[in-house]
Amino acid sequence: MAKSAELICVGTELLMGQIVNTHGQFIAQALARQGISHYHQEVVGDNLGRLTAAIRQALGRSDMVILSGGLGPTQDDLTKEAVAAAVGVPLQLRQEVWDGIVARFSRRGLEPTPNNRRQAELPVGAEPIRNPNGTAPGVLYELPPDARQVIVCLPGPPNELRPMVADFLEPYLDRWAGDERQVLMSRVLRICGIGESAVEHRIQDIMAAAHNPTVAPYAKPGEVQLRLTVRADSPAAAAAALAPLEAMVRERLDPHVYGVDEQTLEGAVGALLRSSGRSLALAESCTGGLLGGRITDVPGASDYFVFGAVTYSNRAKMQVLGVPEADIAAHGAVSAEVAKAMAEGARRVGGADIGVSVTGVAGPGGGSEAKPVGTVWLGLATPEGTWAKQTLWPGLRADIRWRATQEALVWLRSYLLFGAKAGE
Amino acid sequence: MAKSAELICVGTELLMGQIVNTHGQFIAQALARQGISHYHQEVVGDNLGRLTAAIRQALGRSDMVILSGGLGPTQDDLTKEAVAAAVGVPLQLRQEVWDGIVARFSRRGLEPTPNNRRQAELPVGAEPIRNPNGTAPGVLYELPPDARQVIVCLPGPPNELRPMVADFLEPYLDRWAGDERQVLMSRVLRICGIGESAVEHRIQDIMAAAHNPTVAPYAKPGEVQLRLTVRADSPAAAAAALAPLEAMVRERLDPHVYGVDEQTLEGAVGALLRSSGRSLALAESCTGGLLGGRITDVPGASDYFVFGAVTYSNRAKMQVLGVPEADIAAHGAVSAEVAKAMAEGARRVGGADIGVSVTGVAGPGGGSEAKPVGTVWLGLATPEGTWAKQTLWPGLRADIRWRATQEALVWLRSYLLFGAKAGE
Repeated sequence: MAKSAELICVGTELLMGQIVNTHGQFIAQALARQGISHYHQEVVGDNLGRLTAAIRQALGRSDMVILSGGLGPTQDDLTKEAVAAAVGVPLQLRQEVWDGIVARFSRRGLEPTPNNRRQAELPVGAEPIRNPNGTAPGVLYELPPDARQVIVCLPGPPNELRPMVADFLEPYLDRWAGDERQVLMSRVLRICGIGESAVEHRIQDIMAAAHNPTVAPYAKPGEVQLRLTVRADSPAAAAAALAPLEAMVRERLDPHVYGVDEQTLEGAVGALLRSSGRSLALAESCTGGLLGGRITDVPGASDYFVFGAVTYSNRAKMQVLGVPEADIAAHGAVSAEVAKAMAEGARRVGGADIGVSVTGVAGPGGGSEAKPVGTVWLGLATPEGTWAKQTLWPGLRADIRWRATQEALVWLRSYLLFGAKAGE
Repeated sequence: MAKSAELICVGTELLMGQIVNTHGQFIAQALARQGISHYHQEVVGDNLGRLTAAIRQALGRSDMVILSGGLGPTQDDLTKEAVAAAVGVPLQLRQEVWDGIVARFSRRGLEPTPNNRRQAELPVGAEPIRNPNGTAPGVLYELPPDARQVIVCLPGPPNELRPMVADFLEPYLDRWAGDERQVLMSRVLRICGIGESAVEHRIQDIMAAAHNPTVAPYAKPGEVQLRLTVRADSPAAAAAALAPLEAMVRERLDPHVYGVDEQTLEGAVGALLRSSGRSLALAESCTGGLLGGRITDVPGASDYFVFGAVTYSNRAKMQVLGVPEADIAAHGAVSAEVAKAMAEGARRVGGADIGVSVTGVAGPGGGSEAKPVGTVWLGLATPEGTWAKQTLWPGLRADIRWRATQEALVWLRSYLLFGAKAGE
């Protein structure tokens, strides 16, 4: 039987809706990676009775109870008191922890308050977990007599909790889990330039046949993600089971898989620009700089990105990019002609190999019957020619602007892979 | 006694860490607004036994049990089965619900599958809740005989759940809550151009004296937020208690409070530009268009924003903005001289009243001893003169870029309020 862990997030601010419970996801991912079964999560406020009851209940059904939050110095911070009450031991000041807290304060020229002494108290039998990023240590309590059950208390601030999960909890889980666990490993293939139903159509036989690993599609704005998930006895066995499935899926979907896991489309486009030695200039209207923002989110983007013009006014389109006034007058600023002239202008002014432009109606105002909100023209200027294409998406201003940057990147990627064919 | 509600979020994907539990916060906020006590949240997977046990436990301690998720057509969707099992009634097909599902499919030229019939089944005694955004209705079960306890099932997809909370759940809670509730109302004051400790120093007597309402500060990158929170018998009483506190705090912090709740700094700056009839042009280097992206996130930004130049290369800085080559050679692209020349160039090329520039080292590469990663120069060109100022922040590339846009907006706001004084 795989060992099981359950998570109790402590904090009235969660129950008041002041913050979203990101710890729940973060710790669930760590448990999945280590092959620990995870059937329950709770959120409980800063209340000793309810928190103690929640810990007792968790100890009645799970091998490990992980608590987050409530290790601070104030009277509201009750996690250690509740652990002590749940297992029936007192709290005790640990001198070496207190010395560490005093030293930590003195390095900053400060003295701890009497309240901070509470942070040096641990349930008798528990051990402190080092916290280089905060005052309160974590708590590890292996329940006597045989340490088959474990309680772990983690600090609430994310910048303290996350390193403690990575540096302490995951290695501990790896030793504690035993041989019978099933590691859960996922890999997300990120796909662009093809819709969800077309993706499913191309791989429906693979999806139907795949039980472990499984393949599950998710549609995101302007991209499709396929999550490949496997349960196996070890990380190595999991990776070995995922690899052939990924290869099969990639073969069917080639060339639409642009990356995996946290890789971004702007990163994939940047890598293609760099490897092909080509430079990029942008001309943005409705996206207002967002496309440039995405391109330059990639470290080292200055190797290929030279210039972007955010020509929000018609005057700027004409003066900076040389868009003919007649085109704007005849076709409007949201048109194939203006998109092409903007892309060519960006390419020329920036002295770049490729120019990409975006001009559209992001709303909520500015729409018309002929050009409703969501209408966006993209332009692509290259040594082989200049093209424009029209798109139309539903949604709010932010959705339309994001989607416009996404489609511009998809088109640019296609050009970098296939040249002029992508434009025509 | 205020009535209490508890939330059970259903879904193995939550326990596997595939998604973050945003429903927990969203529903907690609705409960707080309606003055419903909220002591417990749980996450349970798609497992009939565990889900039934969680519902029974919740009915043993809360007046209302709200469930989210598990109303879909597949065998994994077990929420209604678990509700029926927990209260000891069977499920029953509701013909009018099934007719609605058939009609919904046929409007799209489709036929429901046999699986969809499960979505028309309700526990005997329950009523469907209209779901205009999806196939599955919600479920309202007022427990007989006296309807003192209530079970509510909400669909899992956010675009179905959120409208159902707003259109059904909140009005229902408002009627159901009774007279003895305590409404919880919050208002967040958003503050810029002053640090957290200076904010606390200015209002420490107010903070110390305020118990209901309370005042709590939060530091965010480049801004401070003060959350004013009050408990009261009614929304009107809550608003009346918050107003004088807000006025006192605002007086102490004037002019640093730029907005409340969801209002943004770019929106505040845009309103000042619009009301003063002045136009804006930008020149961005390390932020790559992000500042323009924020400015144009505000609907109607074309009323005052005319042009942005993303001059990532030195060539673009010189050619598009007229930055003197000698300045770049003598001082480097990240310098007071270049920041000023960029701001002046943007102002001139855009034909704008005000030019703002950003040039810095966002990292991870490109830093030096004299100009470490995080060094950013801002420029401000106006009819009254041109100024530059240097800033330096720690953090990763994304943090530094965000912070640079924030400080540029803070400085611009200051100029719009105080004129040349803000520059000098």
